[in-house]
Amino acid sequence: MNRAMIRNILGSVLEIEAVLLLIPVITALCYGENAGWYYLATAALCFLVGFLFKLRKATDTVFYLKEGCVITGLSWILMSAFGCLPLWVSGEIPRFEDALFETISGFTTTGASILPAVEDLTHAALMWRSLTHWIGGMGVLVFLLAIMPSSGSSHMNIMRAESPGPSVGKLVPKVRQTAAILYLIYFAMTLLEIVLLLFGGMNAFEAINSALATAGTGGFGFRNDSMGSFSPYLQWVIAVFMILFGINFNVYYLILFGQIKRALRCEELRVYLLIIAGSVAIVFFNIINMFSNAADALRHSVFTIGSLISSTGFATVDFDLWPSAAKTVLVGCMFVGACAGSTGGGIKMSRIIIAVKTVVKELNAYVHPKAVRKIQFEEKPVEHEVVRAVNVYIITFFVLFVSSLLIISFDGKDLVTNFTAVVATINNIGPGLNLVGPTANFGHFSILSKIVLMFNMLAGRLELFPILLLFHPGIIKEFFKKSRVG
Amino acid sequence: MNRAMIRNILGSVLEIEAVLLLIPVITALCYGENAGWYYLATAALCFLVGFLFKLRKATDTVFYLKEGCVITGLSWILMSAFGCLPLWVSGEIPRFEDALFETISGFTTTGASILPAVEDLTHAALMWRSLTHWIGGMGVLVFLLAIMPSSGSSHMNIMRAESPGPSVGKLVPKVRQTAAILYLIYFAMTLLEIVLLLFGGMNAFEAINSALATAGTGGFGFRNDSMGSFSPYLQWVIAVFMILFGINFNVYYLILFGQIKRALRCEELRVYLLIIAGSVAIVFFNIINMFSNAADALRHSVFTIGSLISSTGFATVDFDLWPSAAKTVLVGCMFVGACAGSTGGGIKMSRIIIAVKTVVKELNAYVHPKAVRKIQFEEKPVEHEVVRAVNVYIITFFVLFVSSLLIISFDGKDLVTNFTAVVATINNIGPGLNLVGPTANFGHFSILSKIVLMFNMLAGRLELFPILLLFHPGIIKEFFKKSRVG
Repeated sequence: MNRAMIRNILGSVLEIEAVLLLIPVITALCYGENAGWYYLATAALCFLVGFLFKLRKATDTVFYLKEGCVITGLSWILMSAFGCLPLWVSGEIPRFEDALFETISGFTTTGASILPAVEDLTHAALMWRSLTHWIGGMGVLVFLLAIMPSSGSSHMNIMRAESPGPSVGKLVPKVRQTAAILYLIYFAMTLLEIVLLLFGGMNAFEAINSALATAGTGGFGFRNDSMGSFSPYLQWVIAVFMILFGINFNVYYLILFGQIKRALRCEELRVYLLIIAGSVAIVFFNIINMFSNAADALRHSVFTIGSLISSTGFATVDFDLWPSAAKTVLVGCMFVGACAGSTGGGIKMSRIIIAVKTVVKELNAYVHPKAVRKIQFEEKPVEHEVVRAVNVYIITFFVLFVSSLLIISFDGKDLVTNFTAVVATINNIGPGLNLVGPTANFGHFSILSKIVLMFNMLAGRLELFPILLLFHPGIIKEFFKKSRVG
Repeated sequence: MNRAMIRNILGSVLEIEAVLLLIPVITALCYGENAGWYYLATAALCFLVGFLFKLRKATDTVFYLKEGCVITGLSWILMSAFGCLPLWVSGEIPRFEDALFETISGFTTTGASILPAVEDLTHAALMWRSLTHWIGGMGVLVFLLAIMPSSGSSHMNIMRAESPGPSVGKLVPKVRQTAAILYLIYFAMTLLEIVLLLFGGMNAFEAINSALATAGTGGFGFRNDSMGSFSPYLQWVIAVFMILFGINFNVYYLILFGQIKRALRCEELRVYLLIIAGSVAIVFFNIINMFSNAADALRHSVFTIGSLISSTGFATVDFDLWPSAAKTVLVGCMFVGACAGSTGGGIKMSRIIIAVKTVVKELNAYVHPKAVRKIQFEEKPVEHEVVRAVNVYIITFFVLFVSSLLIISFDGKDLVTNFTAVVATINNIGPGLNLVGPTANFGHFSILSKIVLMFNMLAGRLELFPILLLFHPGIIKEFFKKSRVG
């Protein structure tokens, strides 16, 4: 295994984190908070370690998919381990495991918090939490690819490991340009949301925080009632942007280059919007009696569905109090998740589409045993390898799901809490139901359960395999074996 | 489609049902119950309709897998529709949909009841309910194959459609002999259980009923507390037999012919026993404080795990009151289910094994990308087609699961009730948790929900496709098209 290259890239990731940490430092300066020192110290530490990691350059810059996976898995763990330091050392989150949970929840864009009251945090901490969402949404390694000098096809193996979805489409032949275009669209859309939120009366801090957390489909808020106390206009803006950030970025790329018709023909986009519309309809009619007027019911339906299917996790109301049918739809949306190639989590729309088509194909095979036809997706035949990968992914997902559920059930909490805690972390959503509902938090779990849930958040964000592989005996052995080069 | 052949076989199925209905008639005679007349009348009706169905013989006796599926699906629906008549017409179950639910629950060996108090039923009704379990466990069509003159390879297509598991192994080259051997083993084991139960002090009626319901892994009891009021000895006997009937019958075939070593090498058997042992250990330590001595805790652990993993559904205690970890293990066992080729339900042990091996193989592929090796199961490589079928099965299972859950959630019951009601029906178990727990029943659901749950029971018992296919437009069209022959 190319350890030198792994070390170099990890070094770059830490350097990027060092730069990012300066933003909460600036925030602290603006608000005259002492907490800024902790962020500055951590930035210095990140830079130093990053520098040491990059001291000896790799002579061989080629690496393969397994190394891409290891780089990705280790990067995210390292980022979180360093990123939690200011929260912990400053005493804002007194226990290390809680600070780590909160930071992993941030980077993985989960938004599940262990804090009972976020309003007690400093502005610097709130900004740092939102920022972890933003960089985690599109991926820190994708960012790195955008600024790094390109070197052959190896980088595609990082992109493949960090990007969500069953298959990675390069927008343009060059990985570096693809990464740059993605971040450009991402930045522009975030900016647009900030402007629209400012227009609705949020102050700059609120607007930036909300937009960063929406863009990454994260869900960390800065008020104890999440988005409940904002005006209907602001709630609508956030609802629409949550849904927009759940769309495959290919669609925006096509729109950017004037191919609007082709963009609208995107099958995944259509199914995504259709499922949202259907879910909103069911929830709306199920909860309409709980609100004084239909407009409120509609807004809360769209906001909540948008929030959960895009895996953001913001809330305007306590949806844990809604009737069963609505809650079932919500949990369903949590599993389905957003489109591949978006910043959202979940199993992903395209996988669900391919899986359902596989079932239909199987039934058709009984009727016409001799007709061998491939499944079509996005107007193209789907290769058997992709179908197989989707099936294996879904089964791996459930194996991990059930194992996690079993371990956390030893805490003795009720089944709905346990079930939705795993759903909400593995799909990077944030809130679940009951004891992890939108008005509750994850602080009450045991350390073991928190470790399991942290693992789930990382596994969910990185599409399972990069994280699972870190525990594969073969990979561990190869990693500690004398490396291929330097 | 070969409609004449379908009609002929359905006729034979009804004739078998007519004969079976004579057993509750005899029971009624023994106990001097008037209810016997209803069973006699239904027997006559079944015989008459069966006779009419067989009046015009098929000239072409060849049929294919799709026809095998249609025959199987229709047989089970028809059997249930006729089988519920005595319960309904006698007024023992006043509503038709409830009588149908109870009968489908019987034939599919689910054991989910809509009755609040089974002790109010006549002996004839109790015997009929247990008998539906017994014939449903091994399959009425398999029984038919055992007594029908063999005609080429067509019959294999029925066996394939009705037998549980990812691949049907013929024990001997001839389908007819395979079916006969299966029923012979089944009958002998049932008889052995009856003897052991009589030995423990049950009366003949109780022993026969318990053994029939255990053998089919059904779970309809004849006391309101299921098996709670029987002696520890009797509970142990039933616990052991529930586990035994969840084992692949190939194992018994091998033992019968002296190949004990080969039988014990069976991978599915080993994993099945290992999972049971592991689950019992977890549950035992989780519930030990709830009982006055360890022996009781152990017996209830083994009984409940055996009951749920074999999909029987008998209960000695109200496991709904157990702590979360125990309940999570129980729900896990419900999904996993028994071995393929047994009378038990669930996803099936062999599918779970193959699925988990697929995940491990996928991880290995990252480490050694060039090594292409097939998964091994039962010391043989598993063909890609089988792996694909297992994956598709599991995904179809979850698609059906989620759709059902959504529909029944409109009844407004809590999530645990809805979730476990679907788990308990689709896996043919019987009781779930909360409002469908071991001391509760399914009577409170709306008609729509009951229809969905009936569908789940049939789909679960017949391994999804034969039932789903009945609703496939292509199959319906072919069925009503002028048939291939007579």
